[in-house]
Amino acid sequence: MECEAFIGDKLSPNSSIVTLTTDFGLDDPYIGTLKGVILSFNPSAVIVDIKHSIGPQNIAEAAFVIGNSYRFFPTNTVHVVIVDPTVGSARRLVILETQNGTFIAPDNGLLSHVLEDHGKLILIDNDSNVALPFGCKAYWVNKSEYWLPFVSSTFHGRDVIAPVAGYLSSGIASLNFGEAINGLHYNPSSKPILGKDCITGTIVYSDRFGNLISDIPASLLSSITYPSFQIGERHITGLYKYYSEGHALIGLISSFNTLEIAFVNGNASEVIGAKVGDKIVVYSDLKDINNDDSIKRIY
Amino acid sequence: MECEAFIGDKLSPNSSIVTLTTDFGLDDPYIGTLKGVILSFNPSAVIVDIKHSIGPQNIAEAAFVIGNSYRFFPTNTVHVVIVDPTVGSARRLVILETQNGTFIAPDNGLLSHVLEDHGKLILIDNDSNVALPFGCKAYWVNKSEYWLPFVSSTFHGRDVIAPVAGYLSSGIASLNFGEAINGLHYNPSSKPILGKDCITGTIVYSDRFGNLISDIPASLLSSITYPSFQIGERHITGLYKYYSEGHALIGLISSFNTLEIAFVNGNASEVIGAKVGDKIVVYSDLKDINNDDSIKRIY
Amino acid sequence: MECEAFIGDKLSPNSSIVTLTTDFGLDDPYIGTLKGVILSFNPSAVIVDIKHSIGPQNIAEAAFVIGNSYRFFPTNTVHVVIVDPTVGSARRLVILETQNGTFIAPDNGLLSHVLEDHGKLILIDNDSNVALPFGCKAYWVNKSEYWLPFVSSTFHGRDVIAPVAGYLSSGIASLNFGEAINGLHYNPSSKPILGKDCITGTIVYSDRFGNLISDIPASLLSSITYPSFQIGERHITGLYKYYSEGHALIGLISSFNTLEIAFVNGNASEVIGAKVGDKIVVYSDLKDINNDDSIKRIY
Repeated sequence: MECEAFIGDKLSPNSSIVTLTTDFGLDDPYIGTLKGVILSFNPSAVIVDIKHSIGPQNIAEAAFVIGNSYRFFPTNTVHVVIVDPTVGSARRLVILETQNGTFIAPDNGLLSHVLEDHGKLILIDNDSNVALPFGCKAYWVNKSEYWLPFVSSTFHGRDVIAPVAGYLSSGIASLNFGEAINGLHYNPSSKPILGKDCITGTIVYSDRFGNLISDIPASLLSSITYPSFQIGERHITGLYKYYSEGHALIGLISSFNTLEIAFVNGNASEVIGAKVGDKIVVYSDLKDINNDDSIKRIY
Repeated sequence: MECEAFIGDKLSPNSSIVTLTTDFGLDDPYIGTLKGVILSFNPSAVIVDIKHSIGPQNIAEAAFVIGNSYRFFPTNTVHVVIVDPTVGSARRLVILETQNGTFIAPDNGLLSHVLEDHGKLILIDNDSNVALPFGCKAYWVNKSEYWLPFVSSTFHGRDVIAPVAGYLSSGIASLNFGEAINGLHYNPSSKPILGKDCITGTIVYSDRFGNLISDIPASLLSSITYPSFQIGERHITGLYKYYSEGHALIGLISSFNTLEIAFVNGNASEVIGAKVGDKIVVYSDLKDINNDDSIKRIY
Repeated sequence: MECEAFIGDKLSPNSSIVTLTTDFGLDDPYIGTLKGVILSFNPSAVIVDIKHSIGPQNIAEAAFVIGNSYRFFPTNTVHVVIVDPTVGSARRLVILETQNGTFIAPDNGLLSHVLEDHGKLILIDNDSNVALPFGCKAYWVNKSEYWLPFVSSTFHGRDVIAPVAGYLSSGIASLNFGEAINGLHYNPSSKPILGKDCITGTIVYSDRFGNLISDIPASLLSSITYPSFQIGERHITGLYKYYSEGHALIGLISSFNTLEIAFVNGNASEVIGAKVGDKIVVYSDLKDINNDDSIKRIY
């Protein structure tokens, strides 16, 4: 899809926000030292943690998280995304410039959702690389004069990405940090399948409350008169607007603007025993609904 | 009680601190995006996390946490408190202005401790609403022109509260965000009961160290010559000034300025098997103490 | 060892960073209120969390963490380190000034790694105190006019250290906060032992990924032609440069610049069943290597 209107654009022309989305956790000093390096190179940087508890080496989760978060930051924000199981190998560190934010990450698919947001993607080789969407630019971070003088083997986040993020957030242009490139690694994100009588989607995120977030966009649901939902052997009826309007298991539109299954004042993930990757099927309950006054479609 | 002298007042006239106390946890991107929105509306905001691991939907815990934290921030701080099980229902989002800080929260009792700090509270209806204490003002946040253009059903924290908190922290007056109201929802906080020979209180908080924090204020203990404490079947003697002066289970004055039961270099909550909501009784051990030289009252 | 070149020095002359390394966790309001006090005394302070999940009362872990983190911050940073099991006892709160940063902590060994970095340490009494290394100064924080007006018994971090850290970060000189002292408490950190045919070290840190960090510096390994490693009954061959070059259990140089044992795309700590404090022995596998073409030394 094309980019929608952006939150906060032009409201903060001089801010220099750096966001962090990583699998480093918060129980080690890694993120603290990474922040120290960013602030050493840009003392005015405002650093915001998006999520550090990405599952270790879980590139898909990080791609989903940054892909659903960047729009809530000013467009001059620098988004650092690090899940880097092949640190030090041939994988490149890259900068992606879009009109909605600047991203720096290992080129291993972490920016797939962001790329999808910016235009139709076309494969340019047999190695899962796609051409940059119109209006985007990308650079291979390969000029070592901008890195820490000593680069460790295992923590390029601190030694390479952090200094470059510091410089970027202070206004130094991306082209200084390496050569322009015309494609990036892309892992297609999960997409629902439209059947004749149903939509089959996937649980793509489960949050602290046990809410199950699917990949089925709200726009698809609006065409279904009385939707009901199937996860495993569990059948759930009713699409509600607010948690407080329903009881037990319900469907509603998540803050990611997709179908969410929740358990009112409880934990749907535990109740259903469902997890990320499980399938969810949406049916139209037009027939059933005629026989059951208790089912209503509020939203 | 009336307000005591305030920490840091007038020391930081130009700061624009926004604190966050929520049940969102730190394992999801919710808090990150909420911060992005605050910074989009006030790039100078300094955001401080107080606690995000409030038990899901635990309004009483959040009320206790913010009620015991706000005094340690400058008086021009904006305190965001979000535990919102009835998001989207008739519950209002409100701003409370006091001489000690500005608060924005769902009107579901989250500000009960703060209200208690600012004067005697008088019920104004049969729905648990109290009149505002003298010197306080409140507003119903209902002017949608200050919110994000698209408001989700499930995350008003990001879509309504965050933009308003951003504006508030940048100096825009509360009255712009909605109509003045004369009362707020109030859940009375736990209070100890004074008996003839004892004080019966409640464990209201248990921290990372397993320290058990009660609702019995230090001022009540100062009148007891040789206090001892009973939790369940466990009898604890001795009120000490510092952890290092005692051994095993001891009583002392917590950093919340109430009675605390701790296990020196250990975890009282685990040792006793006690938890929030359990009763604690304070006796005077004058009689016992005469027969036991090992018991002393240091504090 | 003497100090190496410093990251970011002079790049951020006006910043006022305060780092926090504590055992308070992030599940209680303690760190939030501590930050509120710092910001009350210095609204311009930029506060960076290094690690709050230090094991309760684990002074050695905190000493390791700050000792391996401070070099990644500007030299005018104020580093707050709080693990304080004897809060309120005779233990002093102290400021240590070095050319690489200013530290404030209880004088219980927390600054041992930092002291080791700044010169040869000489005991000055039988109570584990060492003379200050050349170029360092220290002060006993004992002037209460800089503290909060009411000092609790259990939380000197908030009531004493935070105000002083706020003042320090705003540029007020250390000598204002108390009298100069000539020694600090020192707990020798773990050091490897060089044998005739091997090096015996210790696992000093285990991170989120289960990587086992030893105290054996990279410099010692460079003299061994074909190193192999023994932890418990597990024998590990091969010192690699990057995770992605090896399989299963491997050795490499950690981001702490010491020997690390990792399990590629897995958790070495769980696989081996090893933990902090366990011994690790490095052998030269010259003999073995001749019989095994699959073993290579890349780094």
